[in-house]
Amino acid sequence: MHYAKPLPAYLVQRFNGWKATSYQENKAWFRRLAESGQHPRAMVISCCDSRVHVTSIFGADEGEFFIHRNVANLVPPFSPDGQVHGTSAAVEYAVTALRVAHIVVLGHSHCGGVQGCHDMCSGAAPELELASSFVGRWMDILRPGYARVAHLPDAARPRALEKEAVLVSLENLMTFPFVRAAVEAERLTLHGLWTDTGEGGLEQYDPAVGFVPV
Amino acid sequence: MHYAKPLPAYLVQRFNGWKATSYQENKAWFRRLAESGQHPRAMVISCCDSRVHVTSIFGADEGEFFIHRNVANLVPPFSPDGQVHGTSAAVEYAVTALRVAHIVVLGHSHCGGVQGCHDMCSGAAPELELASSFVGRWMDILRPGYARVAHLPDAARPRALEKEAVLVSLENLMTFPFVRAAVEAERLTLHGLWTDTGEGGLEQYDPAVGFVPV
Amino acid sequence: MHYAKPLPAYLVQRFNGWKATSYQENKAWFRRLAESGQHPRAMVISCCDSRVHVTSIFGADEGEFFIHRNVANLVPPFSPDGQVHGTSAAVEYAVTALRVAHIVVLGHSHCGGVQGCHDMCSGAAPELELASSFVGRWMDILRPGYARVAHLPDAARPRALEKEAVLVSLENLMTFPFVRAAVEAERLTLHGLWTDTGEGGLEQYDPAVGFVPV
Amino acid sequence: MHYAKPLPAYLVQRFNGWKATSYQENKAWFRRLAESGQHPRAMVISCCDSRVHVTSIFGADEGEFFIHRNVANLVPPFSPDGQVHGTSAAVEYAVTALRVAHIVVLGHSHCGGVQGCHDMCSGAAPELELASSFVGRWMDILRPGYARVAHLPDAARPRALEKEAVLVSLENLMTFPFVRAAVEAERLTLHGLWTDTGEGGLEQYDPAVGFVPV
Repeated sequence: MHYAKPLPAYLVQRFNGWKATSYQENKAWFRRLAESGQHPRAMVISCCDSRVHVTSIFGADEGEFFIHRNVANLVPPFSPDGQVHGTSAAVEYAVTALRVAHIVVLGHSHCGGVQGCHDMCSGAAPELELASSFVGRWMDILRPGYARVAHLPDAARPRALEKEAVLVSLENLMTFPFVRAAVEAERLTLHGLWTDTGEGGLEQYDPAVGFVPV
Repeated sequence: MHYAKPLPAYLVQRFNGWKATSYQENKAWFRRLAESGQHPRAMVISCCDSRVHVTSIFGADEGEFFIHRNVANLVPPFSPDGQVHGTSAAVEYAVTALRVAHIVVLGHSHCGGVQGCHDMCSGAAPELELASSFVGRWMDILRPGYARVAHLPDAARPRALEKEAVLVSLENLMTFPFVRAAVEAERLTLHGLWTDTGEGGLEQYDPAVGFVPV
Repeated sequence: MHYAKPLPAYLVQRFNGWKATSYQENKAWFRRLAESGQHPRAMVISCCDSRVHVTSIFGADEGEFFIHRNVANLVPPFSPDGQVHGTSAAVEYAVTALRVAHIVVLGHSHCGGVQGCHDMCSGAAPELELASSFVGRWMDILRPGYARVAHLPDAARPRALEKEAVLVSLENLMTFPFVRAAVEAERLTLHGLWTDTGEGGLEQYDPAVGFVPV
Repeated sequence: MHYAKPLPAYLVQRFNGWKATSYQENKAWFRRLAESGQHPRAMVISCCDSRVHVTSIFGADEGEFFIHRNVANLVPPFSPDGQVHGTSAAVEYAVTALRVAHIVVLGHSHCGGVQGCHDMCSGAAPELELASSFVGRWMDILRPGYARVAHLPDAARPRALEKEAVLVSLENLMTFPFVRAAVEAERLTLHGLWTDTGEGGLEQYDPAVGFVPV
């Protein structure tokens, strides 16, 4: 482990600033959260993309959201095969241990993962088809979505596929028995969102009409 | 998909507040990030826990960090088996596509996932040993860490295991050829952190002495 | 007063969001309310409990309800002894200065104060009997209600006592001469409600039959 | 109890609307709050005034704030005399049972209770000096504040007294041993705010300089 390096100084400096200000102001709350445990209202599944800040756009503070972030905000189908499934583990923990009341899947514009899926499925990125491509195999989850947008004009396809990433994840969430049971018992609701990070737009999926501005 | 529900009104209201204030103030930057793409300096791997706010403690704004969050901030070993590996996909994308300069693994206190691993490995949670337990199978990644803390007194073990979660992830990161190559070429550095969310503490891993306050 | 601390940043941020949206939209009304004074139609007496949102369930906006909230939505009996009586002051102001047309007493499910009264009266919480217990002395107001539910099975008692808290308060309201006079002159009506916050239920007290769904 | 009347139809109608919309959308959360209990982060002490909507200005939803509302947002001094003290009971419950991390005292403009105190203390409202005046006896709590603003010009006095109502309450809060202990242990912070309801302004008390815009 000789390769672990000291934290860059700019981050140490910022942390010290946070400790002297925000932490001091919120110490009582942070201590209570540590002692009494977290009781987040919602799980949010969003992309790793640095432009997507779910806590900012929803003004969320420590303790509010259980947040899973992966490439392209995807949830794979239920597959209890004894293998490692990080996203499924996060969903299981949120629903069965924390008993969150909402799961929000938040897609976004200019998603590099979705673009990769688009290129792979349209034949433009054969390297992503390799078994050794983690991004390619991960984006396989979105292939059913690609099939639904393949007929669209080139220019419209990536954005439509970003929204399909939300819908495929919602569909896959419902394949988890504990998710479906909680939804049917009206102890959990699912929400599909897509944000245009450049324009500050936010659309939500309405089963009757598709994605519409909130 | 008839089960997708409208976003709760309190989140719509908060989003509208953000749109009218923060978004307006940062619109130029957000548009540039949309048009020119993201160029994050670092990837951060942290836990989904609602008490861990990496953007807060490092004062990070849109565009700075590519953030992957999973249960217990774990990275599995390199395993190019053609299966779905969400964390590995995120690491691959960060290192090979975005070419981040740092990967920070951020562990934390009172981690429910780590506690689960502790209980499973010590025999107190046999249900986590089932093939059908996504949390259990995910926490298998941390078993090598448990072996290293099993000799400690009961009270000290969970916290030590939280720090092992950081070390195991760093070790596993180095099994990825593209990570190792970037580290050896000095184009990437790895960092191991652990934060006490209640006390606002931050420790970093120093190969010479272990975890020490930053 | 060196102990007064800055408002947590998340609340400042939310306030700024409100100011830029809701306030802007309603500025004319808020200014008129400031200049012409409030003319609320009703006084509502509800619990401090964070799950009871009287403005939400009745869609009430600024200017509509004069709202007093205390532990367990209690009104003490008329007692003009020159001592401090906050609830009586609120009732006096609402009826004699604002001349509200309705007083609504709103009880609710899972009330911690009522549970405390139950435990105290049944002998399970002797610490609440101490003179130094503010909660205990406050819940003394509900003792006459406990006497009326003491014969019920254990499981039924807390909920019945929550409803007694509404009835005791209505009875006590009528001991205030200015309330009685206004009721008898048909310038004021009293209403007893109980809400199940989990199920979204609302029952009202009908003298002929007891609590019934609205 | 023959005097309890049916709820006005306009409120029944609004409740039914809420039940069919907001309740449906948030049912999962409301149920969780009912089953797992409330864990509010803050207690807010505000006025009964119909123009003060603390949930609106802070975008707070069910479960966030434990809210006590009385005339002029006052807290009396610690007085464990075995008598009925509703505000003290609310503070005791919030701090010792719920263990809130913040207490926010929120004063406001055009406060009728404060105006009454002003008139009483300046000799213009002798009826408020009567032992039988609940409002007068309640506003006695603010007399120490009046002494501190009596030297100001007539026009400036009421507003200054509104802010004194916040300061007197903060001072009195610190006379409660359990409040002081929690503050000194850094498990609770106190905050003093004053809002101009007409202009949408919000000021906070800074010990170094007095009330300043947030």
